[in-house]
Amino acid sequence: MFFASDNAGPVHPKVMERVIAANTGYQMPYGKDTIMDEVRSRIREVFEAPEAEVYLVATGTAANVLALGCYTQPWQTIFCSKVAHIEEDECNAPEFYAGGAKLTLIDTDDKMTPAALEAAIAKQTVGNVHGAQPGPVSITQVTERGSVHSLEEISALTAVAKAHDLSVHLDGARFANAMAALGCTAAEMSWKSGVDVVSFGGTKNGCMGVEAVVFFDPSKAWEFELRRKRGAHLFSKHRFLSAQMAGYLQDDAFIDLAQTANGNAAYLADGLRAAGATFLHEPQANMIFARWPRAVHQKLHDAGARYYLWDGPLDGPADEQVAARLVCDWSIGRDQIDAFLSHF
Amino acid sequence: MFFASDNAGPVHPKVMERVIAANTGYQMPYGKDTIMDEVRSRIREVFEAPEAEVYLVATGTAANVLALGCYTQPWQTIFCSKVAHIEEDECNAPEFYAGGAKLTLIDTDDKMTPAALEAAIAKQTVGNVHGAQPGPVSITQVTERGSVHSLEEISALTAVAKAHDLSVHLDGARFANAMAALGCTAAEMSWKSGVDVVSFGGTKNGCMGVEAVVFFDPSKAWEFELRRKRGAHLFSKHRFLSAQMAGYLQDDAFIDLAQTANGNAAYLADGLRAAGATFLHEPQANMIFARWPRAVHQKLHDAGARYYLWDGPLDGPADEQVAARLVCDWSIGRDQIDAFLSHF
Amino acid sequence: MFFASDNAGPVHPKVMERVIAANTGYQMPYGKDTIMDEVRSRIREVFEAPEAEVYLVATGTAANVLALGCYTQPWQTIFCSKVAHIEEDECNAPEFYAGGAKLTLIDTDDKMTPAALEAAIAKQTVGNVHGAQPGPVSITQVTERGSVHSLEEISALTAVAKAHDLSVHLDGARFANAMAALGCTAAEMSWKSGVDVVSFGGTKNGCMGVEAVVFFDPSKAWEFELRRKRGAHLFSKHRFLSAQMAGYLQDDAFIDLAQTANGNAAYLADGLRAAGATFLHEPQANMIFARWPRAVHQKLHDAGARYYLWDGPLDGPADEQVAARLVCDWSIGRDQIDAFLSHF
Amino acid sequence: MFFASDNAGPVHPKVMERVIAANTGYQMPYGKDTIMDEVRSRIREVFEAPEAEVYLVATGTAANVLALGCYTQPWQTIFCSKVAHIEEDECNAPEFYAGGAKLTLIDTDDKMTPAALEAAIAKQTVGNVHGAQPGPVSITQVTERGSVHSLEEISALTAVAKAHDLSVHLDGARFANAMAALGCTAAEMSWKSGVDVVSFGGTKNGCMGVEAVVFFDPSKAWEFELRRKRGAHLFSKHRFLSAQMAGYLQDDAFIDLAQTANGNAAYLADGLRAAGATFLHEPQANMIFARWPRAVHQKLHDAGARYYLWDGPLDGPADEQVAARLVCDWSIGRDQIDAFLSHF
Repeated sequence: MFFASDNAGPVHPKVMERVIAANTGYQMPYGKDTIMDEVRSRIREVFEAPEAEVYLVATGTAANVLALGCYTQPWQTIFCSKVAHIEEDECNAPEFYAGGAKLTLIDTDDKMTPAALEAAIAKQTVGNVHGAQPGPVSITQVTERGSVHSLEEISALTAVAKAHDLSVHLDGARFANAMAALGCTAAEMSWKSGVDVVSFGGTKNGCMGVEAVVFFDPSKAWEFELRRKRGAHLFSKHRFLSAQMAGYLQDDAFIDLAQTANGNAAYLADGLRAAGATFLHEPQANMIFARWPRAVHQKLHDAGARYYLWDGPLDGPADEQVAARLVCDWSIGRDQIDAFLSHF
Repeated sequence: MFFASDNAGPVHPKVMERVIAANTGYQMPYGKDTIMDEVRSRIREVFEAPEAEVYLVATGTAANVLALGCYTQPWQTIFCSKVAHIEEDECNAPEFYAGGAKLTLIDTDDKMTPAALEAAIAKQTVGNVHGAQPGPVSITQVTERGSVHSLEEISALTAVAKAHDLSVHLDGARFANAMAALGCTAAEMSWKSGVDVVSFGGTKNGCMGVEAVVFFDPSKAWEFELRRKRGAHLFSKHRFLSAQMAGYLQDDAFIDLAQTANGNAAYLADGLRAAGATFLHEPQANMIFARWPRAVHQKLHDAGARYYLWDGPLDGPADEQVAARLVCDWSIGRDQIDAFLSHF
Repeated sequence: MFFASDNAGPVHPKVMERVIAANTGYQMPYGKDTIMDEVRSRIREVFEAPEAEVYLVATGTAANVLALGCYTQPWQTIFCSKVAHIEEDECNAPEFYAGGAKLTLIDTDDKMTPAALEAAIAKQTVGNVHGAQPGPVSITQVTERGSVHSLEEISALTAVAKAHDLSVHLDGARFANAMAALGCTAAEMSWKSGVDVVSFGGTKNGCMGVEAVVFFDPSKAWEFELRRKRGAHLFSKHRFLSAQMAGYLQDDAFIDLAQTANGNAAYLADGLRAAGATFLHEPQANMIFARWPRAVHQKLHDAGARYYLWDGPLDGPADEQVAARLVCDWSIGRDQIDAFLSHF
Repeated sequence: MFFASDNAGPVHPKVMERVIAANTGYQMPYGKDTIMDEVRSRIREVFEAPEAEVYLVATGTAANVLALGCYTQPWQTIFCSKVAHIEEDECNAPEFYAGGAKLTLIDTDDKMTPAALEAAIAKQTVGNVHGAQPGPVSITQVTERGSVHSLEEISALTAVAKAHDLSVHLDGARFANAMAALGCTAAEMSWKSGVDVVSFGGTKNGCMGVEAVVFFDPSKAWEFELRRKRGAHLFSKHRFLSAQMAGYLQDDAFIDLAQTANGNAAYLADGLRAAGATFLHEPQANMIFARWPRAVHQKLHDAGARYYLWDGPLDGPADEQVAARLVCDWSIGRDQIDAFLSHF
């Protein structure tokens, strides 16, 4: 009954098989392995972007901050949701990699609205040397609250950015989960909606530790390579990153895994709803934020269920409503979900 | 016939088996996996340092720069050999992670001498606000030229550092190769010789991508954790780093692999010597810097041998002596070495 | 009729006389001048802090960011009001000097409240490696909206900081104006209220370009010196900074000048109030935020009055209320204020 | 008998007069003062560069590091003499302002040679992601050893830079002294010799604390303004920087002062030579590095002479030759020099 995160489960066999298969003979290091050629081609195909530049790193934070670093001058500010991963969960890595730039937080409990983004950008007067200059906009898809921006919502945000001549980064740690939720293509959810660079996540969705950074603007390629090396993120035995990503992309495994994870979450959400839980955000992908009585949390805890309480401790009045975050990965079995629900 | 580097060969089966075995069920992320407990205990045992703090990262550069960052203030300078990896091969990552600190290069074609180190440190007057302040000393063992410091040589360098109240970092990307060459213990080659923090390499010696940072001074532990996260080097599915290191340490595999690699290099060096090659540095571990006629380079190149020319192009007078760098890993077979030597 | 800022007027004769007097013969550079000895003694006397360490720089931003840098690790966040100078008017200098640290903005249109500060600090869980760690608290006195914290208000904020073991910086660009407004001592408004380091402003109150950084904790002294030099803020002909500060402190000139400036603003505010203007913030020192009809702004503009419109353009409906920021320095004459008011 | 530095003497009356004259009424802050318009025009005239962008800062280190920052990416290295001010006397400020870039030191005891510069640049392979990328070249004129590059020498160095497509910075803390020594124009010693940006010193040559940064490539202007503000080097009462520079440039005062200073040094050097001193470097501007017996140093010391011993302590065998650095500013009188020489 593990619902603490989608970053704690096993690697999918299709990914592991490619890793094992890659372990033969010599391969040129530092991204010059032949498997990377396959990955590059496949990403370009998936994103319908034959000119895209593609790089691999091992952590989602690395993907985000190296990508953003290419678009942010140290005297600029990055616009993002107040609850974005780059604000809440990266220990100042974005500021570090952008040379001391700032994050301007859009006040929201989930998605940015175009109006709020517009207001925030408009406040940073271009050409006023005293304030931070406007930098890129970063959108998280799936959001940190389990919501999925529609294509229209992404386009509306990127339109605001473009009107101010700002670049757009998409933090897609759960990119595949969002694609699965929307039933759209990777191209539609990225460059066709105005996105300039994507962190395309693998780790949370069946890989061991790999994320792709996809630049639709290839002019940033060399700078990215230097930033990756300077950040100590260039792997010598890079083939093992490539192999993971190759397995992840093979036969659209990434979509299948995301559908499975989202399906697990929907199944869990249905059960929770039936049991009387209320939702802080409508679950749209593989994350659930729901509230139910503390007594049930206690029972689940005693039974060994693993997940994060969101707004209160385990101790307290038994009938008080306490919220939880639950995340399903592809590997959690329906039996585990049923076992979880049996405690309600 | 691959002698270009020890970072391009396969992962040893003992390591891969642990990776595969780790791929079951859920494990807490971010270094809280149970395999890491095993790794920590084993490293403390190997280093005879029950208080040591142990962390894993995926690249050698990350190990070096995160370790050095904990000991370097931005207004200090790090003392190292002019040919150190941190100077020549890390694209300013040490400067980046140390907030804009400087490297002071000891002028040598290989090892630092204590006298040269002393002179360099003495030049950076403590308390003179105009110059950089003295920071840590970084020693590379095995050196980038394939030499191995004796324990006495390490102690002589650390004594200079200690006399100036400076900390000492050991870049041990090939730590096991040096241990195998010296026939000494890990403790002797580190804290017993005055070293404060070690980058303990795994990647070049049979792992996929893992290095341990070992602090004999546990007071730096929390700062390291913050620096690792801020550098985007904290793995969510950390168990796969742990598993590699666990396999690498199991039954002293790291020593066996290093002995094999060093033995391969000795065998190759003997063959080269017999064939009339001359050596730029006396090979002591698994790297060889040797010189022979260009015509033989051409033959080797035509036969598909892979290695780096060190001081000249492939084109030129056939009988001119041209140097090469050759690196043997544990996986190169004697048949490959024989095939290589057959072209002389 | 110049009310645009208190950073645009002339230097007071008492300050200029000391500058001129300092211009004779040789003085050791870099803060070793004999006038600095006088300044140090005098600041210690004014602040009743015989152990305080005192340094001079030429800009208010330099004072703030060098002081904060000494108390902020790169993985920490500085807590301040959303409208603090360090957030709005220093072009990411705090982040630059703190190595990529973050600012956590307390949502307020003026002063922080202790409750809001407490909530913001509590959100940054100590020991959670994913989020920024709590760093210092920075209080602005006089605020950027012309308000003055009472001693009780300062103490309440520093008590919150101390409860979390955080240091406190006071941005006192208008320190003397606040002292004059409160009628308190420098000690009461700083270390006696729990402040660890003060940016003690001179530039806006009759100097040419000088600010003192006063550390009540002398352990930061050497680090500050290195940071000042590394920031390129150490003056060779430092005596001319010392001379300004010496003149400013002589015979409590700084208090007299602040009283004059505050008195000018009170006189202007009385006039505005009588003319029907409304106030966004109750003016307590030398800054006024007030609103009156656009038609009057137009008349003032045509007559050559200089000040900033705060929430709207000069063009628009004549009877619409538009806010302005007005700042009085010590040098603005009552005749100028009367001339200004004559347009209402 | 003050020969310790040219940064410790008084401000020239022509400069001080302009400062005093500037102290009337209001002037727009932050470089928008009308005196700056005069300065900008005058610098463009002096440098015969009508498109040049001109900025003022208060310290020589600020001028150097802000100028270099505009031309250096964090993964690059700046090429300079091993004895350059940016290496030896700026406490890592260049690295700080260039985001963690490196300095590559040309091994020389004074000027760089074109051959050594070429070799150093050639070693940093463009496109090799492991090493630092080549960045700008910084030339110091007058050198830190008191030598003056001929125009041919400057052109030879900039030609090397240009052949590698690198920019060139000139650290002209003693620019006027070099002009006076060469009898050339400012244009000849800068853009006509291939220099892209100049730190044009005022402080050491009769000002209070002002340096101009002159960009012959105006495309860097806005970036410089942001970097200056972010570095906390933008003065609010900027008119007092402008006034100094205006006085310094008026009637070519900067040339007159430099000629006086150089003449003083030549007079002193002649005296030393006559007294049997030997020279480490041939004095060409206002700095002298000379050697004479320790006993004479002792006599000078006892008589109150101020200067730096260069290669040994005051204590030791009386007849041993000990070197000294002597610097003459414009204000040192011939009587003081005669007094100094009388001790030989």
